[in-house]
Amino acid sequence: MTDPYQPPGKVYLIGAGPGAADLITVRGARLLAQADAVLHDALVTEEMLAYCPQAVKINVGKRCGKKSTAQRFINKLLVNSARKYQTVVRLKGGDPMLFGRADEELHALEEAGIEYKVVPGITAALAAASAVGVPLTRRGVARSVAFFTSSTAPDEPDQAKLPDCDTLVQYMGGREAALTAQRLLEQGRSARTPVVVVENASLPEQRILRLDLRTLQLGLPAASGPVLVMIGEALASRNVALHAQQPVQLLACAR
Amino acid sequence: MTDPYQPPGKVYLIGAGPGAADLITVRGARLLAQADAVLHDALVTEEMLAYCPQAVKINVGKRCGKKSTAQRFINKLLVNSARKYQTVVRLKGGDPMLFGRADEELHALEEAGIEYKVVPGITAALAAASAVGVPLTRRGVARSVAFFTSSTAPDEPDQAKLPDCDTLVQYMGGREAALTAQRLLEQGRSARTPVVVVENASLPEQRILRLDLRTLQLGLPAASGPVLVMIGEALASRNVALHAQQPVQLLACAR
Repeated sequence: MTDPYQPPGKVYLIGAGPGAADLITVRGARLLAQADAVLHDALVTEEMLAYCPQAVKINVGKRCGKKSTAQRFINKLLVNSARKYQTVVRLKGGDPMLFGRADEELHALEEAGIEYKVVPGITAALAAASAVGVPLTRRGVARSVAFFTSSTAPDEPDQAKLPDCDTLVQYMGGREAALTAQRLLEQGRSARTPVVVVENASLPEQRILRLDLRTLQLGLPAASGPVLVMIGEALASRNVALHAQQPVQLLACAR
Repeated sequence: MTDPYQPPGKVYLIGAGPGAADLITVRGARLLAQADAVLHDALVTEEMLAYCPQAVKINVGKRCGKKSTAQRFINKLLVNSARKYQTVVRLKGGDPMLFGRADEELHALEEAGIEYKVVPGITAALAAASAVGVPLTRRGVARSVAFFTSSTAPDEPDQAKLPDCDTLVQYMGGREAALTAQRLLEQGRSARTPVVVVENASLPEQRILRLDLRTLQLGLPAASGPVLVMIGEALASRNVALHAQQPVQLLACAR
């Protein structure tokens, strides 16, 4: 096994977590307070940026429609910032290593010979599970969980097949919720499988919706922020799960 | 959608994160500093407990062999502590909602009519990905990741089938690594699929091993701490992935 020691980095790629300012890690908050420059996503709040009043702040939030251009621009800006400032933080929503396109930014830094370190963040699915008070795994019920997004390439061959884990969490899954439900029903999941939808997990605007696969087929109301769609028996409310004589369809009404 | 507001809880179920004391959340650290009593797992370090010098500390770490008895004991102790102290923290390694058996503890609190809140933690897989510097998802390569454990019931019918996500992370997967590799090869994964094994993620004793599915079949050396086995094309080292002319089997030697 290799020695994990790495010299301190000049660029810190930090996961900001799901949104609430106090759900960043202690390490992340401390590094923000030491940063000369902070490049942050659009989803990072003012409250979070209050950890680094001393830093130059650059909003590199991407806008829909021209993502790959924007990513190249961010990579370049990150390298340029590292050459200009002593300590640069790249602050990303959630965790950098999960749906964060960290790989492209780290590659740019490596090609430029710039040192970096990555600091993990609370991913939205875990914040949502905590907020709702339901686990993603449960002994004897669920011992695997999949985090996934839809393909952005509509002709990708495996697009229709959804993961076969006990619990599923679709990131940015609001718009496709009806399609996701339909596919899972076709793949043999029960219509009564519990579904929990969480919008803006951990923020004051957080909203939670409880339904089941049957009702998810009807789609979801429009959302104002990131939507997680969580599906699986582990998400059953505890009373229903533990007292099986109760009718399970109560879940569908429990808004 | 429902109002997410809940009154402040008396028991805080807090994810301590992967091990390093500064990888707990700011919220978690602040609540520890306010706690009257802290019930913690065996894996929680002294450095982490330094956040709560004022609190009564109770080690409820489970030992192998009599898990279910121990869990019932923890549930009871948690309820009793909440009746005795104003603010009780139940501090669990990783995230409480992922392989944390939070459900059983929350159920005990609900049955006893005790208020609670859950604070998420960095799960080991994300800490490991950050430590290694490889993402779990990668645009055009991997858009789904499964976190799973082996069944503890050897006669469970679906035990042999591993999740079909692009990236797989097996928690506590050290001992079964050879079996996991064999099954994935049988399920059609390439022998050259990158594998990264991380022991004691985020701690000073952290060790990282890079290999591939073919070599994983030979099993892993004995470990002194929790072992994560991460498998998938997203974990390819960037140079190999981005310069395809390089021989991929280099990965197998890159210890």
